[in-house]
Amino acid sequence: MKIKYTLIQKEQNTKARLGKIETNSGTVETPMFMPVGTKATIKGLSPEEVKACNSGIILANTYHLWLRPGEDIVAHCGGLHKFMNYDGPILTDSGGYQVFSLAKNKEKDITEEGVHFKSHIDGSNLFLTPEKSIEIQNKLDSDIAMSFDECPPASASYEYLKNSIERTIRWAKRGKQVHNNPNQALFGIVQGGAHADLRKYSAQETVKLDFDGYSIGGVANDNESKEDMYKAIDYSIPYLPEDKVRYLMGVGEPIDIIEGVIRGVDIFDCVLPTRIARHGQAFTRNGKINLNNAKYKKDLQPVEEGCDCYTCKNYSRAYIRHLITTDEMFGGRLLSIHNIRFLIRLTEELRQAIKENRILEYRQEFIEKYEKDN
Amino acid sequence: MKIKYTLIQKEQNTKARLGKIETNSGTVETPMFMPVGTKATIKGLSPEEVKACNSGIILANTYHLWLRPGEDIVAHCGGLHKFMNYDGPILTDSGGYQVFSLAKNKEKDITEEGVHFKSHIDGSNLFLTPEKSIEIQNKLDSDIAMSFDECPPASASYEYLKNSIERTIRWAKRGKQVHNNPNQALFGIVQGGAHADLRKYSAQETVKLDFDGYSIGGVANDNESKEDMYKAIDYSIPYLPEDKVRYLMGVGEPIDIIEGVIRGVDIFDCVLPTRIARHGQAFTRNGKINLNNAKYKKDLQPVEEGCDCYTCKNYSRAYIRHLITTDEMFGGRLLSIHNIRFLIRLTEELRQAIKENRILEYRQEFIEKYEKDN
Repeated sequence: MKIKYTLIQKEQNTKARLGKIETNSGTVETPMFMPVGTKATIKGLSPEEVKACNSGIILANTYHLWLRPGEDIVAHCGGLHKFMNYDGPILTDSGGYQVFSLAKNKEKDITEEGVHFKSHIDGSNLFLTPEKSIEIQNKLDSDIAMSFDECPPASASYEYLKNSIERTIRWAKRGKQVHNNPNQALFGIVQGGAHADLRKYSAQETVKLDFDGYSIGGVANDNESKEDMYKAIDYSIPYLPEDKVRYLMGVGEPIDIIEGVIRGVDIFDCVLPTRIARHGQAFTRNGKINLNNAKYKKDLQPVEEGCDCYTCKNYSRAYIRHLITTDEMFGGRLLSIHNIRFLIRLTEELRQAIKENRILEYRQEFIEKYEKDN
Repeated sequence: MKIKYTLIQKEQNTKARLGKIETNSGTVETPMFMPVGTKATIKGLSPEEVKACNSGIILANTYHLWLRPGEDIVAHCGGLHKFMNYDGPILTDSGGYQVFSLAKNKEKDITEEGVHFKSHIDGSNLFLTPEKSIEIQNKLDSDIAMSFDECPPASASYEYLKNSIERTIRWAKRGKQVHNNPNQALFGIVQGGAHADLRKYSAQETVKLDFDGYSIGGVANDNESKEDMYKAIDYSIPYLPEDKVRYLMGVGEPIDIIEGVIRGVDIFDCVLPTRIARHGQAFTRNGKINLNNAKYKKDLQPVEEGCDCYTCKNYSRAYIRHLITTDEMFGGRLLSIHNIRFLIRLTEELRQAIKENRILEYRQEFIEKYEKDN
């Protein structure tokens, strides 16, 4: 089996939908947030800790694993699940985003065949093609692989984007042709910036290729505005089939997840919860808080009152502030657990709100609280 | 209750002894290795992980906690156990070792009253006295506190050491007088370098003050030779009472633990298992291995065959090498778990060997294997 998406319920007032994804590594409910384990590890956390957050699918990065340790070593170790000791579902990205974000502009040459660029580690010359990306992902043996796409910057012109999506469609086709892992699903990616016609065209042409699911890409670039992100979703969703899962790539701000769900997105991923954790920041219902702040010095409360995560059940803000301000890595670990659980709990509540057809009320209540102190 | 040490069995051929220590936070068996949680956290690990290594007492550093977050904040948070979420026994050191090792020589002024020195964090002027050290430890509310002692360098002259141990005895007396926590035991510290007469004098005078246990200090300084360490133990032990626990400070090399146990030591502590872990090193029965080594790239074996720790039960050397070489903190965490469990398991085996009166054979078998490849 590859994967199977089942639409369970549509919310009455919006495009939000409740569903489930069956994979060889377990069944997960959607909407869902996927924590990111870039190099086959969710920074600082054990697989058990991630699971204790009620994680569904997690994500790993093809580009990073290609460079180190190399896909052949992961395959030698029995594939990604066994390598990193995570038996739940794993999605791998295509490497496209990293190629376009990590390599400097002048060190990158995009050709029809693929992308020449320099390694962010040692500057060596690398060449990634749609076929190579799929071949690597086949070997990593994730449950879901992504097509190799170009991720143009938010500033790209209409003309540039038009050519780019045409090429990304050709790349998607080439990748699909070589995909060769019967246990792995393959998703196509819709690009096209904030342009209605480009998104429509990209979605329609990608859907014609008949993938196991569809992603909306190009919304998490630097300088991307929220309006453009919402436009990109709104312009793509109507052309995606109802019986396939929809994935908004790189999105992890709580409010953006809510807005994505309302617009019909099923799954999300982002490094945000772990990245801000390492800098001492935590999500709460009342907005983000920064544990470096001296006001938490003697604060006996948990990071977030009412949170059911390991961190909030066992540690005070005062202790976590101590760890963060003295560079103790257990601090980042505790906040990562909380932040991941926060986003997963958010999607659990969104699922409940869909069931009750009250997702617009949920959004309003959430935003009022979240933005009050921010 | 403070603590109660019970001598259970003496080994027939050596001074090794089996015992138990009852504390308000649980009963532990000796010989035992104590993992170090410098700033109220065993670097990178959760209390549950430390306990899963079958930890007994753990150690925290008074000097570091005095500076950050400050003993009053720890007390405000309910004391060290509650602050760091560890309900097992905790021992705090006196700060003496850090004052003498972290502060540069010329920035340190030892007077009869105490030590003037500069903070290793911001260079501010600090003054630590025997009374202050005990007062801080009383507030931290550990199960066992240590007397404030001077830790002279290995190179100190006989004359210097002689004056130093006299002062350390006076300091021990002053500390004992102000000690004021009915639930906390207080240990005295024997100094005197590798000189038989000084160790004897220091031990006898310290024992006269009637502490709840006794430490052998000054053996883990830089440049200290192994012979001098063993001499320091041999010259101190005969003058320590049989019904009190004996603690060799700062020792964590497997062979030194075995030698210490054979010489009559009950408990040990060291940062070694977590420090070398962060650099990719692991203890094994066949000596230390360095996971940075390319030969482990495709190694599907656990760090140590037959080890019962979480790391060895779930991860390959290849995966851990990947984490270590890509600076992923989960690597240091996995190796810390293994290394701590290794030393704790070593002491479990030493206890068994004492029961069976075969500790000399155990030493021989261990050393033959351990030093073969090292």
